[in-house]
Amino acid sequence: MKKVAVVLSGSGVFDGAEVNEAVLTLLHINKQGASYQCFAPDIKQMHVVNHLTGEAASESRNVLAESARIARGEVKPLSELDAAEFDALILPGGFGVAKNLCDFAVNGADMTVNEQVLAVGKAFVAAGKPAGYMCIAPVLLPHVYDKGVRVTVGNDKDVASAIEQMGGTHVECSVQDIVVDESNRLVTTPAYMLAENLVDAEQGIRKLVEKVLDMSA
Amino acid sequence: MKKVAVVLSGSGVFDGAEVNEAVLTLLHINKQGASYQCFAPDIKQMHVVNHLTGEAASESRNVLAESARIARGEVKPLSELDAAEFDALILPGGFGVAKNLCDFAVNGADMTVNEQVLAVGKAFVAAGKPAGYMCIAPVLLPHVYDKGVRVTVGNDKDVASAIEQMGGTHVECSVQDIVVDESNRLVTTPAYMLAENLVDAEQGIRKLVEKVLDMSA
Repeated sequence: MKKVAVVLSGSGVFDGAEVNEAVLTLLHINKQGASYQCFAPDIKQMHVVNHLTGEAASESRNVLAESARIARGEVKPLSELDAAEFDALILPGGFGVAKNLCDFAVNGADMTVNEQVLAVGKAFVAAGKPAGYMCIAPVLLPHVYDKGVRVTVGNDKDVASAIEQMGGTHVECSVQDIVVDESNRLVTTPAYMLAENLVDAEQGIRKLVEKVLDMSA
Repeated sequence: MKKVAVVLSGSGVFDGAEVNEAVLTLLHINKQGASYQCFAPDIKQMHVVNHLTGEAASESRNVLAESARIARGEVKPLSELDAAEFDALILPGGFGVAKNLCDFAVNGADMTVNEQVLAVGKAFVAAGKPAGYMCIAPVLLPHVYDKGVRVTVGNDKDVASAIEQMGGTHVECSVQDIVVDESNRLVTTPAYMLAENLVDAEQGIRKLVEKVLDMSA
C-alpha cells in the first residue's frame, strides 16, 4: 500500500489549512487504496482569525495542535517526516500555507519558507518522489524546485506574478484541472483559489491525488 | 434547487463537529445538486480539547465561530434557522453534539438538549420535512421525535441503551449503511461511531444525504 505524507498548516481557511481541501485530499488518497499520515510544524500560528467575523483575535494557537482537528488527533510533528518512509507528498492550501508554512501573506515575492517545510519539500525532490501542492501552496515551489518549475494557482494575476518573480513558471488552469510538471514529478491544482463549491474543488483535487499516486514508483 | 440546513457544533471531533463528517455531508449535498446553509448555536463550547494530546485546554471558544472554520465563514446563528426556508435538516456528529448541542457527554440518558437545537429539530418535524442525523447525533432524537423513533448509532451498547432509556428504538447498523424511519422521515447512519477511514464514512453519509433529499418534497 502506498503511503502519502500530507502536510497541514492549521485548521481553517483564513489562518490554517483549508478544511475542505484537506478532507478531500485524505478522502481521495483512501479511495486510491493508499494510506496517509498527516504532519504539521509544531509552531505558533502567525495569528488567529475569527472565521465568523474575519477579524484577527487576541489568541495564540499552535499549528500542530489545530491541524490535529482535521486529522482526528493523528498528526505528527513535521520534524519527524522522513521522505524515505513515504511514496509521495501532498500539501493542501489555505491561508495557513501563506502565513504559517511561509510568510507569503506578509512579504509576497520576498517571502521565506519555514526551514522544516523547505527541508521536507527538498527531501522528496532529492528522492525523486512525486508531490502535489494545491491552492496557494504552489508559492512554495520556486523555493523547493529548480528555476522554471511549472505550477498553477489558477488565474490570480498577483500570485502568478509573484511566483514568476521568484523563478517559477505560472500556467493558468481551471478549478477542475491540474498542471503537471513531468520532469519534476509535480502536480498542482487551483482548488479554492477558484472553487465556488465542493464539487468543483473535488474534481481538481481528485485528479491531483490520482496523478501524484500514478507517478509514485 | 433544494436547500438543506446543516447544523454544526464546532470544529474538531473531540470538542466540536467531526470535520470529515461535516465536509462529506456538504460535498454530497452539492453532488445531489442541492445547496446548503450551515448554522451553529452562538454559545461557548463546553470545553476546548487539544486534539494532539487529548487533554482539556484552559481556553474558551465559541461554537458558532469555530463552526465557521469548516464553512469558510459562511455560517449563521442557529437562532436564525427558519425551517420554512429549507427542504431538509442534517446534523453531522462529533463530540460537539454531545457536549455543545446537548449534555449527553456529561449526563447520559439524563441529558437535556440546547433549547435552540430542540426547537429547530421539532420545527422540521412539525413541517413534515425530512432530517438526517449521523454519528452520535441520534442521541438527540428521542427528545425531538415521538416515543419509539427508530435510530442507529452503529453498535455501541452504552449509547444504544441510553437511547432506549430515553424512549427511542435503537437499530444496529454497519458504517456503510443507513437506518430509515419512514414514518418520521428520518435517516441515521453510524459514520465515525464505527468508521475506520474516510471511504467507510463516506458510504453511509452519501446514502444518508441521498435518502434525506429523496424524501424531501
